[in-house]
Amino acid sequence: MDSIKEIDLINLIEKMFDEPAPGLALGIGDDCAAIRPKAGFETLITTDTMVEGTHFKRESTTPDSLGRKSVCVSLSDISAMGGCPKFLLLSINISKDVDKRWIVKYLRGFKAMTKRYDCQLIGGNITRSRNLSLTVTALGEVSKGFRIDRSGARTGDLVYVTGSPGDSALGLDLLNRRKLSYTKQERRLIVRHQKPEARVEWGQILSSGRIASSMIDISDGVAIDLKRVLKASCVGAVVELSRFPLSTEAKKIIKANGAKAWRRILSGGEDYELLFTAPPAKLKTLDRLIKSGAIKAVRIGGIVKGKGHLTIIKPEGGELKIKKEGWLHNQQ
Amino acid sequence: MDSIKEIDLINLIEKMFDEPAPGLALGIGDDCAAIRPKAGFETLITTDTMVEGTHFKRESTTPDSLGRKSVCVSLSDISAMGGCPKFLLLSINISKDVDKRWIVKYLRGFKAMTKRYDCQLIGGNITRSRNLSLTVTALGEVSKGFRIDRSGARTGDLVYVTGSPGDSALGLDLLNRRKLSYTKQERRLIVRHQKPEARVEWGQILSSGRIASSMIDISDGVAIDLKRVLKASCVGAVVELSRFPLSTEAKKIIKANGAKAWRRILSGGEDYELLFTAPPAKLKTLDRLIKSGAIKAVRIGGIVKGKGHLTIIKPEGGELKIKKEGWLHNQQ
Repeated sequence: MDSIKEIDLINLIEKMFDEPAPGLALGIGDDCAAIRPKAGFETLITTDTMVEGTHFKRESTTPDSLGRKSVCVSLSDISAMGGCPKFLLLSINISKDVDKRWIVKYLRGFKAMTKRYDCQLIGGNITRSRNLSLTVTALGEVSKGFRIDRSGARTGDLVYVTGSPGDSALGLDLLNRRKLSYTKQERRLIVRHQKPEARVEWGQILSSGRIASSMIDISDGVAIDLKRVLKASCVGAVVELSRFPLSTEAKKIIKANGAKAWRRILSGGEDYELLFTAPPAKLKTLDRLIKSGAIKAVRIGGIVKGKGHLTIIKPEGGELKIKKEGWLHNQQ
Repeated sequence: MDSIKEIDLINLIEKMFDEPAPGLALGIGDDCAAIRPKAGFETLITTDTMVEGTHFKRESTTPDSLGRKSVCVSLSDISAMGGCPKFLLLSINISKDVDKRWIVKYLRGFKAMTKRYDCQLIGGNITRSRNLSLTVTALGEVSKGFRIDRSGARTGDLVYVTGSPGDSALGLDLLNRRKLSYTKQERRLIVRHQKPEARVEWGQILSSGRIASSMIDISDGVAIDLKRVLKASCVGAVVELSRFPLSTEAKKIIKANGAKAWRRILSGGEDYELLFTAPPAKLKTLDRLIKSGAIKAVRIGGIVKGKGHLTIIKPEGGELKIKKEGWLHNQQ
């Protein structure tokens, strides 16, 4: 195996990523990076770690996908505040069995996402470890007064999700079955797990138009992430599953497995879709944005009184109870 | 063993660290933290990871020391740019064998250092891993035009170090000998290894007075860190060991082991002292600051022509050659 030295890896990263960027005063290679925040903006900052064995298995994902995903996971948090991604730091705890080819492919996937989201790697850390792990810190910016927190939901607000949450968890289940081949529809779910997107553009539409009253990204499942919003906002919510946006494949799985599949969809993590609330006064604006295709979102319920209480109504009526509300491995 | 759940750990951290702070718009608990950088300042950012087995052994350090050290390591990078520390993120990859008592003590040590350096924990990440590791990201600020990079050393400049570099490596050697008891002097070296300080105040004096032309913190040893400055600045340096500031204990070890001990002192990492250059025009100002006790620094040599070449002159004359120039496990 062509094991890679830390110093070679640092040189490789410098070569691949060290470019000038707007707002960047000093990039990779000194004790710190230095940035020049724009006047009238707040700086957003978030960090996420993906650990081998906990968040991924090298045998069931490609280094390219993992590189892409590690960027998306952190940028998703920036999106969820309505922010614009600017800079990234990457810390790699590298284990002996990671060879140069693997890491080069990982970095290429990472770089593709920095281009996709117009942000720049400006620093990080490389160290030896028994366990491979990848920590991405993302910095973004948002105009003062336009940041969307978890705590802004009010009674009477409408609850929306983007995309079709749950697909990632269903994709992971399929992967874990280790089938020899997958159907086209199954592969679509697997792709949603392995190559999520950060909903950066949608987050910014919801922020700049002052549409969302609260927002979070769905990293640990709709149920637990909505509960976080409810707790932060001191309100409750009713979600109607008859309204819930399901992919074609998810619909099939629900048809076969009923409540069990619903629980998986609502508690499965790593969708990186947005979950937001909006006051009724924004309903028309949102309808227009959704119809025009500017944002793909569906209203799934409404905010009611109740400190953190979530009621989920089954499509056929009656309440769906969920015990294990979400993935806890990846909490911010 | 009283193992700790991620969710309990997050709650514990929120309880211990979630306080308002100047410049902080939103702290722990949302998708991102949000800060309001001051106009006229640049934001500095750096990240460092300490991995069990690579950077520390739990059996030979206390959780309190490790908590302190993980703050110092990152703040040292802020100091080395002449910056003022402001905010921290802490990402913990926690292994099953870490119990609640250990982590509480670690966090107390961490907190003590945030108080010492007047900065604030504003976010992070907790995840399970086979291998304990601690990543600290630090954000600082520096007035525009006052940042001190590695690349500013010019021919004719003077080379200084703060404190007595090498003590940390000698302390680590003593620890590794696993003696049943240590003398007072030996314990002093061990403390320098386990409880380093970040030279924040000194870094700011050197920046605000426009004294240093280049600066780096000594994380991997004087030899390799000085070489980094030389390469970034496209210059060479001559260091005279007769001028080198040694602690009493280091002097004894040099007396017993000669060149071998010198090599250890110059290549040993984790001192977190500052290494800086200053133009001759600043000599008087520096002398005054040193005499008054405002900064503890010693001139060890000068900058000469030569792209990255370092010449080390032994106290008795003649050149000291160093093959293994420094610790590479912890490169930025």
